[in-house]
Amino acid sequence: MGGAWAQSGVTLSGIADSAVRHVRNEDLGGVTSLVSGSNATSRFIFRGTEDLGGGLSAGFHLESGVALDTGANTTANTLFDRRATLSLASKQAGELRLGRDYVPSYTNWVRFDPFSHVGVAASANFVSATPVGPIKSSFGASPNTTTRTSNAVQWLMPAGWGGLEGGLMWASDENGTAANGQHKVKGARLGYAAGPLVVSGALTRTENNLTTAGHFDDRVIAALYDFGMVRVSLALRRFEQADARQNNVLLGAWIPVGNGEIKASLQRVSFSGSVGAASLDDNHARQLGLGYVHNLSKRTALYGTLSHISNSGALAYAISGGASGLAAGGSSRGVEFGMRHNF
Amino acid sequence: MGGAWAQSGVTLSGIADSAVRHVRNEDLGGVTSLVSGSNATSRFIFRGTEDLGGGLSAGFHLESGVALDTGANTTANTLFDRRATLSLASKQAGELRLGRDYVPSYTNWVRFDPFSHVGVAASANFVSATPVGPIKSSFGASPNTTTRTSNAVQWLMPAGWGGLEGGLMWASDENGTAANGQHKVKGARLGYAAGPLVVSGALTRTENNLTTAGHFDDRVIAALYDFGMVRVSLALRRFEQADARQNNVLLGAWIPVGNGEIKASLQRVSFSGSVGAASLDDNHARQLGLGYVHNLSKRTALYGTLSHISNSGALAYAISGGASGLAAGGSSRGVEFGMRHNF
Amino acid sequence: MGGAWAQSGVTLSGIADSAVRHVRNEDLGGVTSLVSGSNATSRFIFRGTEDLGGGLSAGFHLESGVALDTGANTTANTLFDRRATLSLASKQAGELRLGRDYVPSYTNWVRFDPFSHVGVAASANFVSATPVGPIKSSFGASPNTTTRTSNAVQWLMPAGWGGLEGGLMWASDENGTAANGQHKVKGARLGYAAGPLVVSGALTRTENNLTTAGHFDDRVIAALYDFGMVRVSLALRRFEQADARQNNVLLGAWIPVGNGEIKASLQRVSFSGSVGAASLDDNHARQLGLGYVHNLSKRTALYGTLSHISNSGALAYAISGGASGLAAGGSSRGVEFGMRHNF
Repeated sequence: MGGAWAQSGVTLSGIADSAVRHVRNEDLGGVTSLVSGSNATSRFIFRGTEDLGGGLSAGFHLESGVALDTGANTTANTLFDRRATLSLASKQAGELRLGRDYVPSYTNWVRFDPFSHVGVAASANFVSATPVGPIKSSFGASPNTTTRTSNAVQWLMPAGWGGLEGGLMWASDENGTAANGQHKVKGARLGYAAGPLVVSGALTRTENNLTTAGHFDDRVIAALYDFGMVRVSLALRRFEQADARQNNVLLGAWIPVGNGEIKASLQRVSFSGSVGAASLDDNHARQLGLGYVHNLSKRTALYGTLSHISNSGALAYAISGGASGLAAGGSSRGVEFGMRHNF
Repeated sequence: MGGAWAQSGVTLSGIADSAVRHVRNEDLGGVTSLVSGSNATSRFIFRGTEDLGGGLSAGFHLESGVALDTGANTTANTLFDRRATLSLASKQAGELRLGRDYVPSYTNWVRFDPFSHVGVAASANFVSATPVGPIKSSFGASPNTTTRTSNAVQWLMPAGWGGLEGGLMWASDENGTAANGQHKVKGARLGYAAGPLVVSGALTRTENNLTTAGHFDDRVIAALYDFGMVRVSLALRRFEQADARQNNVLLGAWIPVGNGEIKASLQRVSFSGSVGAASLDDNHARQLGLGYVHNLSKRTALYGTLSHISNSGALAYAISGGASGLAAGGSSRGVEFGMRHNF
Repeated sequence: MGGAWAQSGVTLSGIADSAVRHVRNEDLGGVTSLVSGSNATSRFIFRGTEDLGGGLSAGFHLESGVALDTGANTTANTLFDRRATLSLASKQAGELRLGRDYVPSYTNWVRFDPFSHVGVAASANFVSATPVGPIKSSFGASPNTTTRTSNAVQWLMPAGWGGLEGGLMWASDENGTAANGQHKVKGARLGYAAGPLVVSGALTRTENNLTTAGHFDDRVIAALYDFGMVRVSLALRRFEQADARQNNVLLGAWIPVGNGEIKASLQRVSFSGSVGAASLDDNHARQLGLGYVHNLSKRTALYGTLSHISNSGALAYAISGGASGLAAGGSSRGVEFGMRHNF
C-alpha cells in the first residue's frame, strides 16, 4: 500500500552490536565466544507515525531482535519479539498502545542500569535462569513477564504533565496456558523528572496457571541524580510469589570522559521467605560491573566491560557465555570488547 | 546489489491492524483478547518493479504476515507466507508470475466479502477448522489450498481486454506429500467489470496424496453491483471432494456514510452428499456480520464489528478467540473494536 | 534510531530468482518443480556503512535467504542465515569483521564456478548430501563449514596492496557441540589479481566433537584467465578428515554473446583413502553443465541451464529436485528456465 499513499512513511533502522567475550566460571576454565548486543541489543525496526491533525497521530513499531554472531532470530517464530505495537496518540490525552511491549516494571528498571540489562555486567544476570524463588515457581520454563508481555493494551501519559511520566498496562490471558506464554498482566508506572532528578516506581502483576496460589508481583522503585561530573542511580526491585521473595538492589554510575563514558554498577540479590517448606534465606549474590564506552561518532562506539559475580548459599548465577555447571556458591568472571553501530 | 543500480527500486510498506475482541461461545462464557488484523491482515511487504522498455516490466513481491498482538510470524519458518512472487509482465500479453500466491477461487471470493475474509465476521469462519466434509477429507491437518498455494506458475490477463480479467494457475506437487503442503493445483478465473457491475467465476482443483479418490474442487461464482448509496454482492462457493460437498453462500453490502462505511454480510453454509457411509445432509450454519469503519485519514481507520454464528446438525463453527469446546449446534457471538494503519 | 541520526544510512536490496526445473534421475522418472535461486540465491539485505573520518568506516550487513517458490526461510529460525556481520574498516589496515560469513575456502571456490554454486549445474551438487567420505564423518547431520560459519572474527586485506587480496578467519566453538553447529574454525585466503589473471588459494580448518581424530580441512587452489572472447577457470578443492579425502576439480568457461553469456562447467569428484576399514577408492562422479544467461537490463536476466551427472562406485550424487532414491552409480539429468531480478 506504501506506494499508493503520498504521505506514506516507514523507517527502517536498528542496531548492530557484537563483541568478543571471555568468561571464566570457578573451577570450569575459560570460554571465549563472539556475542551479540553487549552494549545494546542488535535489532532492526520498521516504524512510522502519521499526523492525523488536531494533536492526534497514528503510529506503529515492529522491532526484531537479531543475534549478530549467528544471524539467528532471538526468539523462534516470533520475528518481532522485541516490540509489535499499534498506537493512537493525543498530545493532550496520551497514547493508547496495543500489542507486545515492555512491562512497566522493566521500563522502570532498565533506565537505572548503566549497562542497560545487557552484556557481561547486565543486571539481567540476576533475573533469568533463577535456580530458586518466585520466578522459577511462577513461570517454570514458560516465558516470564519480567521484561515483556504480548497481548497488551496500554495507556501512556502524554509529555508535559508537569514532569510526570508513566502509564497503565493490561493484558488478557486469552484463556491460554502458561506454557503458551499467556497470562493476565496488570501494571502501572509513575515517575517524575525535573532537572537533574528522576524518581520512579512501577508494579507489574502477573497471573497464569502456575500462580494459582496468588500472583507474581514485580515491584521497582528507583531514583537517578545527575551531578554533572557523575550521574548516579539507585534501584530496588522485588519479585514476589506466594511466600517467596527475590530482592535486587542496584547502584549505578555514569562518568563522562571526553568522547566516552565510564560506567559502573554494583548489584546485590537476596532471597527471603520460602517455597513450600524450603526456606530461601541465606541465598545471596553480588555483581560488580565496570565499563568504558568510546564514541567514534554519534552512531558508532567501541566498548570494553569487566564483570564479577560471587554467589553464596544455593545460588549459582553466572555470566552468560561461560562453561555450564557452576557449583552453588561459585564465582563467575567476564570481560568483553565490542562495537555498537546504530543505523 | 541495491546500491549498485541507479534505477534500483524497492518499497517497504504494510499494514498494522489490532483490535480488542470479545467472543462468547454458547455455555462456555466469554473470552477477551487482543487480536491482529481484523480489518486487514497485519503485514509488511518488500516489492518493486522495473520498466524493461517495450511494454515489458519485471517485478517482485515479498509479503509477510505479522501477528501484531504477539509479534509472532503468522506461519512458522515461512517468512513470506502471504506472497512470494517474481513476475515478467507485458502490457499486451499479460503477466507471468512464479511463486507463492492466492489461488484463483480465493481471489474471486474475497473481493465479494465486505469483511475481506478477516475479523469476527470473516467468511473464513466457515472455511477453516471444518469438522466434516470435503476440506477435512482432502487436507486433514495439511495446509489446504482454499487460500494460497506455493510453487505456482500463473498467467494473469493484462488490463484493457474489454473489461475482462482473470488468469490461469498451475502448481506441481514436486513429488511431495500432502503433509508437506505439496499438491498439484490447476486453477482459472474469468471476470468482467463494466461500470457498476462485476461478475466473476473461478475454479481451483487440487490433487494430493489424500485425494486419491479424485480431487478437491473449489468453485466460486459471484457478482457485485454498485448502486451508489449501497454496493451489494452475492457469492456462491462450493468445495467438493468425492461425494462430499460444502456450499457457502454470501450476501454482502457496503454503505458509505460520511468518512466511513457500514458493512454487512449474511453467510450460510450447508453440506450435502456423504463421506463414506456418513451422510452430510442436515448440517448447516449461518453467520450475520455487521460493522462500521471510520476513516481518520486515507491511511488510518477505526472500526467496530459484531458477528453471530448459529449452527445446526453436527456443526460447531465458532468465531476465533472464544473458549474451545463449542458443542455441535451451538452458537457463537463476537464483538471487536480496532484500528488499522497502512504504511 | 534511524530517524534520529542525520547521516543515518541503511539500504534494503536483494535478489528475486525463480525457475521451472525438470530433473530425471535414472530409473525414477521425471519431476517438474518450481525452484528458487538458480542463477543467484533469492535474498534480501539490510546494510549500510558510515564514514568515521581518517580512512575509517563502520558497516553492517544482514542478509537473509528466501525460498521464492514457497516464501519459506531458507534456514529455520535463522533469519540472517547468509550473512550477519559488523565491521570496522581502515583503508590502510583492512577490515575487522565480526559475525556469520562465508569461510575463506568457499569464497575462493565460488568465484571460479560459472554457475556460482547454485542451480542444476551447481558445483554444490558434489558437496552436500555426501554419501561417503570426510564431510559425512566430520559433520554428520550438523551444519558443515564448507560454506559458512557463525561466531567468526575476520581480518580482510585492504584494496591496493599490489593486487593482493585475502584474509584470515577464526571462530570459537564456544564450548558447544557439533549438533549445535558449533566448531572451531581457522582459515586463511591469499590471492593475486592482475589484469586478466587471478590466482588464489585458501584453507579452512574445522574442529568439532565429531573430528576428535583430527580436524576437517577444506583446501582450494584456483586460477582464472580472461582471454576476452572467453574467460576460463580451473579450481581444485580437497576435503580431508583423518584418512579420508574428497577431491573436486572444476573447469569453467564464460563466453560473452551480445547481451548475454554462455557458461559451461565440467566437474569431477573422486575419493581416496578410507573411513575406518572401508576404502574410498573407486568412487567418482562427473558433472557437465551448460547454460545461457540473457540480460533484459542491468538488473534483470532470463536464463536456461542443462546439467548431467554420472556416478560410479557407491556414489549417487543427484541434481536437487528429482525423485529420491537414485541407485549407486546412477545418473541424473536436469534442465531449468528461469529469471533473476536484482532489487
